[in-house]
Amino acid sequence: MATFGLIEYNDASPQVKAVYDDIMTTRKTDYINNFWKAIAHDPALLKRTWEDLKAVMAPGALDALTKEMVYLAVSVTNQCGYCIASHTRAAQKAGMTEAQFAELMAVVGMANETNRLASGYQVAIDERFRV
Amino acid sequence: MATFGLIEYNDASPQVKAVYDDIMTTRKTDYINNFWKAIAHDPALLKRTWEDLKAVMAPGALDALTKEMVYLAVSVTNQCGYCIASHTRAAQKAGMTEAQFAELMAVVGMANETNRLASGYQVAIDERFRV
Amino acid sequence: MATFGLIEYNDASPQVKAVYDDIMTTRKTDYINNFWKAIAHDPALLKRTWEDLKAVMAPGALDALTKEMVYLAVSVTNQCGYCIASHTRAAQKAGMTEAQFAELMAVVGMANETNRLASGYQVAIDERFRV
Amino acid sequence: MATFGLIEYNDASPQVKAVYDDIMTTRKTDYINNFWKAIAHDPALLKRTWEDLKAVMAPGALDALTKEMVYLAVSVTNQCGYCIASHTRAAQKAGMTEAQFAELMAVVGMANETNRLASGYQVAIDERFRV
Amino acid sequence: MATFGLIEYNDASPQVKAVYDDIMTTRKTDYINNFWKAIAHDPALLKRTWEDLKAVMAPGALDALTKEMVYLAVSVTNQCGYCIASHTRAAQKAGMTEAQFAELMAVVGMANETNRLASGYQVAIDERFRV
Amino acid sequence: MATFGLIEYNDASPQVKAVYDDIMTTRKTDYINNFWKAIAHDPALLKRTWEDLKAVMAPGALDALTKEMVYLAVSVTNQCGYCIASHTRAAQKAGMTEAQFAELMAVVGMANETNRLASGYQVAIDERFRV
Repeated sequence: MATFGLIEYNDASPQVKAVYDDIMTTRKTDYINNFWKAIAHDPALLKRTWEDLKAVMAPGALDALTKEMVYLAVSVTNQCGYCIASHTRAAQKAGMTEAQFAELMAVVGMANETNRLASGYQVAIDERFRV
Repeated sequence: MATFGLIEYNDASPQVKAVYDDIMTTRKTDYINNFWKAIAHDPALLKRTWEDLKAVMAPGALDALTKEMVYLAVSVTNQCGYCIASHTRAAQKAGMTEAQFAELMAVVGMANETNRLASGYQVAIDERFRV
Repeated sequence: MATFGLIEYNDASPQVKAVYDDIMTTRKTDYINNFWKAIAHDPALLKRTWEDLKAVMAPGALDALTKEMVYLAVSVTNQCGYCIASHTRAAQKAGMTEAQFAELMAVVGMANETNRLASGYQVAIDERFRV
Repeated sequence: MATFGLIEYNDASPQVKAVYDDIMTTRKTDYINNFWKAIAHDPALLKRTWEDLKAVMAPGALDALTKEMVYLAVSVTNQCGYCIASHTRAAQKAGMTEAQFAELMAVVGMANETNRLASGYQVAIDERFRV
Repeated sequence: MATFGLIEYNDASPQVKAVYDDIMTTRKTDYINNFWKAIAHDPALLKRTWEDLKAVMAPGALDALTKEMVYLAVSVTNQCGYCIASHTRAAQKAGMTEAQFAELMAVVGMANETNRLASGYQVAIDERFRV
Repeated sequence: MATFGLIEYNDASPQVKAVYDDIMTTRKTDYINNFWKAIAHDPALLKRTWEDLKAVMAPGALDALTKEMVYLAVSVTNQCGYCIASHTRAAQKAGMTEAQFAELMAVVGMANETNRLASGYQVAIDERFRV
């Protein structure tokens, strides 16, 4: 199920349990998905990644749904199967409709296409776009 | 400036001019950026790409700003210099604030990190995430 | 099992058998993994890839374990499922501990994150880093 | 020099200055490279990224040089110009010799090649490599 | 089978059926592959993608087989499992021999290797190659 | 110009000179491009890469022009600036017309788009495409 197996709640150290508890409380669920159980073999990574994620994905200047859709857009671009599956669900849970998903994929597709056209035609950056 | 040079408005064929005109009208600007002038060497590609882009980026289930930010997220993930420069400006023109940009980049960074953690730990997709 | 199937030892041509023999001798094993059996349909590619790999992965200025971990880091970044599975084992065989794996993944994750932050913020290369 | 410019030490807020100070102390240098000055527009990102990086790159089960070389291997695979330039120098500062760099690049090149051969030939993961 | 399931011909709207019909007529087959049935949830995307693909893949300055092999080369580079499987078959249907496939993969492998060597060694573009 | 500088012919060791001579003879030119001069710091890599490239790019089941265009397609997909610049010229030297280049880029763009649509919609591989 993962390189070093999945660490279930009952087998977890107190440090890992504390992160699992925070994940469940924050997400209002009693489910811990495999990603966390797989990286729990490195408790420091588990804690840091979760805390960073919690901070980064919290609503701020961008709302939670927009952030989830951006996360999905990146995962699709990188062709990460696990991330596409889990973040599709996360985005749906955050309210993504089928119509929004469809428009999201259309944008992701176009961006991946034009990224290569820009590079392939060796287009110089316009003076006004330079920083 | 581009593999086959940039085609300026005055040197363009009527078919290319028609696309340039539509770009300027749609975007309410008198500026055609280098991307379009570079791919104008292939008038069919120019027309198809512009029409697809116009349809895909029009506000719908997602607003224009969200779409521009997703475009930028993909371009950053692909490390396309031209696209990052031009779509940063496009997103700003669509209203992206510095705070929104900052949160966008934080999400893009995290997604690129966790995509690799998920793959690197060979995490199996949770039963409930399967389609 | 592969686009053109796997070529087993007993069905292999003398040229392919010679490479298989060298793989088993060099690696002190009687096992040929699927990668080699799949590309054996192109004996020249098989021979060239194996000889290059043998030369590149031999201990030199970098030890064998470091090289295996770098190989794994690249495979994870590219999200290549086969390569992640096989090079995780190869690295373990070369002595990689669970703690080393964990630190390796943490570095790979961070590098993938900051690569995008650098591109996304369009950071110019410092004068002192230029070549 | 960067999307929102570079924040120099003298213009930085106390929170940003504290991170800059820690970078200089930790790295035993009086130089802050552009990456940090560019992301300092988001003080929370600056602080989090620096603290994560400091933790991840500290010697542990892997030594500092190995970590820097892995960082460089990922950056090369992702074709991130800024990161390649800055981490080449960081690795050299950590002791990377020209011979080590050469072997590192050879491994990175081979891994990128064989990643595609494995995918292109659609090689199934060996039973013994599965997790 | 796909995020929102596959839309079969008999369950399709007239707009989707029209695209399916054109795919079958153009390709001289009675089979619609999963890709189209999956994106049929967005009829506008289905129509646009199919029409673009039909135009782009039609023989012109490049013959149909060459185009299919380029498509496969890109899909292998991006490590897209679905695309590799479907475009390998499409290329074979267009006449790709096993020998051509083998040479194609060898080129794809080398290009992925030397792309990283060029970036890793930070090679400046030769004056005569600049545009 | 490159991480360790460029090694010019007159400063090269006999082993490096022998490779340079073979490049010039094979390519019927007196010009050695920067890529080779940059990796010449690792004479074994220089020799192996050149010999592999010479073997892989020689006309066989695929002609030289097709191979150069595939090389360019991969380089564009990977967004490698040096490789795009040098292989555009190499393809032109091998006879690529502007019309062929245009069709090549159109295919590369479409493939990059549909690769993400296939992944984003999580399309299962059709039974008949499985190997």
